[in-house]
Amino acid sequence: GPTPTDGVVAEPKSVALVGTGLIGGSIALAARARLGATVVGVDPDPAPALEIGAIDEAAALPEALDGAAVAFVATPVAALAPTVTAVLAAAPAGCLVTDTGSVKRAVVAATDDERFVGGHPLAGAETGGARGAREDLFDGATWYLTPTRRSSGLQLERLHRLLTDLGARPAVLDAETHDRMMAAVSHLPHVLANVLVGQAARALGGEHAGAFGQVGPSFRDATRVAGANPSLWGEIYAANGDALVAELDAVLAALQDVRARLAGGESLEGWQAGAAAQRDALSAATAGEALAELRVVVPNRPGVVADVALTLSREGINLADMSLAPSADMATGALALWVPAARAERARTLLAELGLSA
Amino acid sequence: GPTPTDGVVAEPKSVALVGTGLIGGSIALAARARLGATVVGVDPDPAPALEIGAIDEAAALPEALDGAAVAFVATPVAALAPTVTAVLAAAPAGCLVTDTGSVKRAVVAATDDERFVGGHPLAGAETGGARGAREDLFDGATWYLTPTRRSSGLQLERLHRLLTDLGARPAVLDAETHDRMMAAVSHLPHVLANVLVGQAARALGGEHAGAFGQVGPSFRDATRVAGANPSLWGEIYAANGDALVAELDAVLAALQDVRARLAGGESLEGWQAGAAAQRDALSAATAGEALAELRVVVPNRPGVVADVALTLSREGINLADMSLAPSADMATGALALWVPAARAERARTLLAELGLSA
Repeated sequence: GPTPTDGVVAEPKSVALVGTGLIGGSIALAARARLGATVVGVDPDPAPALEIGAIDEAAALPEALDGAAVAFVATPVAALAPTVTAVLAAAPAGCLVTDTGSVKRAVVAATDDERFVGGHPLAGAETGGARGAREDLFDGATWYLTPTRRSSGLQLERLHRLLTDLGARPAVLDAETHDRMMAAVSHLPHVLANVLVGQAARALGGEHAGAFGQVGPSFRDATRVAGANPSLWGEIYAANGDALVAELDAVLAALQDVRARLAGGESLEGWQAGAAAQRDALSAATAGEALAELRVVVPNRPGVVADVALTLSREGINLADMSLAPSADMATGALALWVPAARAERARTLLAELGLSA
Repeated sequence: GPTPTDGVVAEPKSVALVGTGLIGGSIALAARARLGATVVGVDPDPAPALEIGAIDEAAALPEALDGAAVAFVATPVAALAPTVTAVLAAAPAGCLVTDTGSVKRAVVAATDDERFVGGHPLAGAETGGARGAREDLFDGATWYLTPTRRSSGLQLERLHRLLTDLGARPAVLDAETHDRMMAAVSHLPHVLANVLVGQAARALGGEHAGAFGQVGPSFRDATRVAGANPSLWGEIYAANGDALVAELDAVLAALQDVRARLAGGESLEGWQAGAAAQRDALSAATAGEALAELRVVVPNRPGVVADVALTLSREGINLADMSLAPSADMATGALALWVPAARAERARTLLAELGLSA
């Protein structure tokens, strides 16, 4: 199958990390080990990240950005927008700036700087602290990228490749879709885990707690994230409140329906079978796929590459990899895209509709 | 610490298993390997259990019970009551009869035979089929016992010891409490897993499914049991419908409360912290404990041993082990009980209230 060609932008040798907890520390470890990068960390308490060898040195803003090729902002969600703004103000002209927040609309809306591309790795969110950091935390993990039409195509391509080199699987989508989806597949499961623990505490509570020994593997699986990092998760729920409320409304309706059918003596076997089919469909959709390579020449103006990625994403076509090589005069660029082979024809059509022939 | 003394009832060398799926097949493997038992299996299709060497031979009722010392009924939930009744009719005089159903009230109410003690191992419920059977399936797993006051104390003690020998951790409680508790810690998590998969299918569905790659470890954990074995789980939901409806009502109230607070802009950090505390309390309650041994002399009449076990269970005092040695004239028995050391004083008081001095 096709393999990515080398891009024209050198790998970043100087990385700034603002927020050196579990996510930041793991990025730092991977960047040092896998990219040979020098990492400068910014944190109210950089000691743990220094002790585990995640960062080469600690510094403060704006000095930490001196000469940085890439800056990651990995603070708690509520601090993302002001921190990204401060980092962009301090960052050199060509510096790629990204973040790792699990809610994306607010931080993406906070800047129209072309150097910024929002990001969100699906890893490690339920715990925290640099001492849990691991070089391989992102191996095989989905890492969402949420560029806007204002984002530089070169920076998007650079970030995509950088994250692939860190071991992750980047996937581009818009911030709105990301936040709606995370409400369903991450924030809602956390809420339900809390509710389940509350129900169990009531059922097993007080005098009965000791009598019940274990509670079985299905309960442990279902409640693994219950009560995770209250200050971090309080911020996440708040930042994605509207999308989470919409999910809760749908869950309330679904549970009321199940309750009525159960109370009415109706069999739930068909409902259970429906869930099995949905689970199978989700598993199939997330399995590995053969890739096809598409090449187009794109004009070198802001928004083009992000527009391509988002247009494909809106029809469920994931960019498994991408590469952008500007022409000598920088007027155009050769853009190579790797998409699922089964969707290659549709991707060609969409590219043609954007005025690009593949 | 104290260790159980040998009881007077010899280990069963002849075991009948009615229903040789995952649970029955695993009991059979463990009984053969760990008790040196000969196992006769009853199943519409005994071939898989024979092929994996779980049963020595296949037979039909009532012949399968000839000479059986113990009979396990491990059919789907809806078939338990009639099957247990048929097995009791065919079983020899001293034969212990138990079942493995995950809902207990109906099967326990179906008989007043003193040889029957209801049971429920917390293992393997989400899959099925003898080919998944494992000798170690019950190692360390809680195995609930739901005797009634009509159950023979000798049979209860014998079953308790037998299950310990199979690797499980027996815990005695009444059928009502069991079913309420299972609604909270097992049946409800299965319902919520289905609902989560439905929400995700909607959020990721159709054209978007391919775009979203993985959905993160918290979602996979939360939905591991979604859609599990529809015919088996349809029966479980129905058999425990009233208790599950009560749990759903409590969940609906809890979710409506969370939704209102979120929509009102209230921080959920305190609520998340509360869930963390509940989760910690549940974990602490299920951790290992030092044991103390209590010895009492009990009159040899029906219900005494079950009464002791249930009285302790109602105050959350689990019997980690028990041993009953009848006197030579069978008029009384020496009952040894192992309970958490921290609860030994309370257990002594409860025994005294039953007219037994420890």
